[in-house]
Amino acid sequence: MKLYSYFRSSAAYRVRIGLNLKGLAAEIIPVHLRHNEQHAPDYAALNPQHLVPLLEDGPHRLIQSLAILEYLEETRPEPAILPPDPAGRARVRALAQVIACEIHPLDNLRVLRYLVRDLKVTNEAKDQWYRHWIVEGFDALEKLLAGAPETGRFCHGDMPGLADICLVPQVNNARLAGMDIAPWPTIQRIAAACAEIPAFAAAHPSKQPDAE
Amino acid sequence: MKLYSYFRSSAAYRVRIGLNLKGLAAEIIPVHLRHNEQHAPDYAALNPQHLVPLLEDGPHRLIQSLAILEYLEETRPEPAILPPDPAGRARVRALAQVIACEIHPLDNLRVLRYLVRDLKVTNEAKDQWYRHWIVEGFDALEKLLAGAPETGRFCHGDMPGLADICLVPQVNNARLAGMDIAPWPTIQRIAAACAEIPAFAAAHPSKQPDAE
Repeated sequence: MKLYSYFRSSAAYRVRIGLNLKGLAAEIIPVHLRHNEQHAPDYAALNPQHLVPLLEDGPHRLIQSLAILEYLEETRPEPAILPPDPAGRARVRALAQVIACEIHPLDNLRVLRYLVRDLKVTNEAKDQWYRHWIVEGFDALEKLLAGAPETGRFCHGDMPGLADICLVPQVNNARLAGMDIAPWPTIQRIAAACAEIPAFAAAHPSKQPDAE
Repeated sequence: MKLYSYFRSSAAYRVRIGLNLKGLAAEIIPVHLRHNEQHAPDYAALNPQHLVPLLEDGPHRLIQSLAILEYLEETRPEPAILPPDPAGRARVRALAQVIACEIHPLDNLRVLRYLVRDLKVTNEAKDQWYRHWIVEGFDALEKLLAGAPETGRFCHGDMPGLADICLVPQVNNARLAGMDIAPWPTIQRIAAACAEIPAFAAAHPSKQPDAE
């Protein structure tokens, strides 16, 4: 397998964690987003969305991190990153989507660029925007996690899965933005539990071949 | 089943289509987003994210439209809204996520409110923002659809599925914003094919009990 990745991309970070959890090796091919390599004709031909990650698995070319992770779960089921029961699976997917559909899309590079270039917002207002959506999302997530008997050492029980895979890169982004995670104690506790797992640690941006 | 819905919410619209396609009845409980009913204590206790849709199925309370649709697929598999093969499923999920993770989150009500209230952007700039993310997303989607042998009468083959479920509400939003869909002929063609299916037609905002 080949993973087109950017060390700082949290969507690529999710897939790196998923591959590691399942013990799968993939050649990392860096695409430098800040240097606009995602818009180069060769890459745009591979992914018309001009985004990372992209996973090549034999003849299959896969985009969108959550779709890639579901594909890995279906083709390499062990160890599982989703629970076996439909209600549990729905809960884990929903927790993942609170991050992947409600926080991350608002804070990614192309959106921040639009704020500055097109809407001419100040750097301060841009940073406030960035933190605002993390606060909104983490407030909801903390309630969903802290109030649920299904929450264990990780987001769902005592094995890491899809929700943790999405949580850790988002917590990393929040910290990079200078945010303190302490107001969300369950998120903080789960992120710390994940950090102890080699599959998560090895996927960290600082451990990537293109890290700066 | 009970579906907490808002006639104009495209995430709720997706779940309404999915329920109809599977021939499932759900009592619709309207939550008026523009009147801020999603922030009322009773609703916030049900969904800490203060968003619709929320589906109650017996003892299970489910949030996030894509997670709900996957749950319906797992608990009521016929007719299927995902293809049987992992690569096909990954393609359909990715098409759905191009909309649900890259277009819709940027154009939903809470984000438009932030642009106007906090960033003080003009109405014109807000409308431009709204259209910008649809154009970016539809450009990518059109390439992904038009260039693929898997595309049929619908996004994937000749049966409607998860990608079409996400596409139709997004096309509806684009039209409501005065956009012409003709620049994306495959999207236009698929949306027209979906409109002929009663399950899609009955889920339209104008057919809802809370329609204005």
